[in-house]
Amino acid sequence: MLNKNLKSWIEVNPKSDFSIHNIPFGIYSDKTVKHHACSAIGDYIIDLYELESADVFDLQRGIFEEKTLNSFIALGKTVTNSVRQKLIELLSDENSILKRDEALYKRVFKKQSEVQMLMPVHVGDYTDFYSSIDHATNVGTMFRDPNNALLPNWKHLPVGYHGRASSIRVSGHSFHRPKGQQKPADSELPVFGACKNLDIELETAFIIGKQTDMGESVSVEKADEYIFGMVLFNDWSARDIQTWEYVPLGPFLAKNFASTISPWIVTLEALEPFRVKGYMQEPKLLPYLQYNGDKNIDIKLDVYLRPQNGTDNLICSSNYKYMYYTMEQQLAHHTVNGCNLNVGDMMASGTISGHEPHEYGSLLELAWRGTKPIKLNDGTERKFVNDHDTITIKGYCEKDGVRVGFGECVGTVLPVK
Amino acid sequence: MLNKNLKSWIEVNPKSDFSIHNIPFGIYSDKTVKHHACSAIGDYIIDLYELESADVFDLQRGIFEEKTLNSFIALGKTVTNSVRQKLIELLSDENSILKRDEALYKRVFKKQSEVQMLMPVHVGDYTDFYSSIDHATNVGTMFRDPNNALLPNWKHLPVGYHGRASSIRVSGHSFHRPKGQQKPADSELPVFGACKNLDIELETAFIIGKQTDMGESVSVEKADEYIFGMVLFNDWSARDIQTWEYVPLGPFLAKNFASTISPWIVTLEALEPFRVKGYMQEPKLLPYLQYNGDKNIDIKLDVYLRPQNGTDNLICSSNYKYMYYTMEQQLAHHTVNGCNLNVGDMMASGTISGHEPHEYGSLLELAWRGTKPIKLNDGTERKFVNDHDTITIKGYCEKDGVRVGFGECVGTVLPVK
Repeated sequence: MLNKNLKSWIEVNPKSDFSIHNIPFGIYSDKTVKHHACSAIGDYIIDLYELESADVFDLQRGIFEEKTLNSFIALGKTVTNSVRQKLIELLSDENSILKRDEALYKRVFKKQSEVQMLMPVHVGDYTDFYSSIDHATNVGTMFRDPNNALLPNWKHLPVGYHGRASSIRVSGHSFHRPKGQQKPADSELPVFGACKNLDIELETAFIIGKQTDMGESVSVEKADEYIFGMVLFNDWSARDIQTWEYVPLGPFLAKNFASTISPWIVTLEALEPFRVKGYMQEPKLLPYLQYNGDKNIDIKLDVYLRPQNGTDNLICSSNYKYMYYTMEQQLAHHTVNGCNLNVGDMMASGTISGHEPHEYGSLLELAWRGTKPIKLNDGTERKFVNDHDTITIKGYCEKDGVRVGFGECVGTVLPVK
Repeated sequence: MLNKNLKSWIEVNPKSDFSIHNIPFGIYSDKTVKHHACSAIGDYIIDLYELESADVFDLQRGIFEEKTLNSFIALGKTVTNSVRQKLIELLSDENSILKRDEALYKRVFKKQSEVQMLMPVHVGDYTDFYSSIDHATNVGTMFRDPNNALLPNWKHLPVGYHGRASSIRVSGHSFHRPKGQQKPADSELPVFGACKNLDIELETAFIIGKQTDMGESVSVEKADEYIFGMVLFNDWSARDIQTWEYVPLGPFLAKNFASTISPWIVTLEALEPFRVKGYMQEPKLLPYLQYNGDKNIDIKLDVYLRPQNGTDNLICSSNYKYMYYTMEQQLAHHTVNGCNLNVGDMMASGTISGHEPHEYGSLLELAWRGTKPIKLNDGTERKFVNDHDTITIKGYCEKDGVRVGFGECVGTVLPVK
């Protein structure tokens, strides 16, 4: 599936996430452009609106001038894949119009460092799953019973819940530490104040590319037709608020103050060469959740914490392949009751923890409920996130010298407002 | 506050929900109109797009030609209230242009029975609360412990969770009974099949009229500035799916297959005269949830069940005034952590049960978990909703001979697809 010999005439560092094998989609702005759709190669963005002025895609040019990619994605995979293939052709063919036409070249390519990436999609509905067995086991061990860490339903269905779409922001933003009710162990009554246990959750999310009607279900086999691509996702979590509020209806204010995504949607097609075998699922699942083939994906995921005026500390190295449930199973479950999908809906994985302590995807687990603080390179320690800390998630696939990555998902915590 | 002498020159039946004191907002279509904003008086709708052709509102006429009311609502209460006041003036003044100009009159008024009402708003995010003390007590009594029916957090905060916006439909729709995993008490493993315990939840919902930024909180005192109006809401619930899936992250597939709203948004201003004293809240709440004044609303709420080819059976008579938490408290809680709001967001009350058995707002409670089936006028019984049953919620305020109502919220269950 991987054509290792495919090369671009644009110079691409071998460590770049944006090789010719990637060709993701995003939305950018700069001092002259309010919002244009774009792709990426090496250190550059590719302005798709400007490129379409050369009539290379046979699309309405306006589609690349919209605020988000929703209308483009809604054209369907036949169209979006052909745009991606055309880009690969234009970027690899030494004689392509994009290389020959100097004026076009100048309008189309911009340094990534000189543009600002915007939210790639309007998110109608956002769902968060809870599909990493190591994460669910760790949380169950800490808060319930190490011998019965997983709840009875966990191995029968991908547990999920609805989250807040309005507070999902693109990489590079900052937000204020949330306030709320907490109930300290030594207090009979709840107290109000700034969240003391602000956490991160290392996640990915997939974006729906095809609408369904109410009453329609998407099978595991057909699920990939409905998944446009993936982004990195940080599901910021206020643990002390969560503990007090979440029984019986689930997390609410503990999660809905902010989530961060990476700006580039890496298409499912770009990720296909990196598929790997999934988790052994025992007991056997109900038929609507059973699947064949390699459906996990080998995506290396790293999390960095940078204190104010400090440098990045690698605090977690995990991998998407540790997921117990696949995206296809999550989507089949989500729609088995007839719940309808819209283009741009976002479905996050849940915290992705591996089995080893350095693979845990949250500070709750990394510092084991505060009992094993993380030492940083500036000599300080963390049980949870401090004010002015910046969290960066990076993610990439690599195989046979070919790299396809997501770029960065960056968010900074400001003091309580 | 109520001017009982205010009358319209349009004949309005005293039992109509759409008196001159109401003047709600909605969106309609008919054979000539794709979607126009409208109001209602008596048996008529008032086409606001056509009315604006006479330059009565000093607004862009296009605002009433949009698919939803979101842009209109986003103009702010100063504008939307002045439109409503102008309508009251035009409908009460015997010499108004609307009465004098016959051509205008004919373009503006249409029989409600001859138009189709559409979704009044695009719902960005939907939240469901759980704020009726009798409902929460009943559920806690049935499923946990009659002596400790309310969970520890319940009297300290309005418990809420995020729901699915995509499957909210306007009155008059039908949907297929959902399928999903259930775990029967006598089975060791979950089974897959049609929901057996399909329930209703009698609720209302309020619609956000003013945007906030991330990090901003809305106080209890200012909350009414952010609430545009209310609708009736049926939160269809698959109880057997819910029981198996909801621990620990809350209801998911048990709720997201369908919700039904009434088509007319009754403004908060129209409801103000019907405010009544709220529930005595003990223990005392944290300061950000404390409020003064009469903040509950006396809204009579009736639920009817109609079997296929049958007639309506009144199965529940409740009242919005039984709510423990007010809308203002729900909104203050929702935003206290900085969660941002968008115009059109919808926040539902949770099932509204009164203290008496005939006031219970769900079949789960009315038939007390199947132990007290409801007898219908055709001789059949119901523990939950059957295929082809139609559920109608009606709601209205009445005081000193003045009536302000919501019309109907109607949904029909079709067999599993």
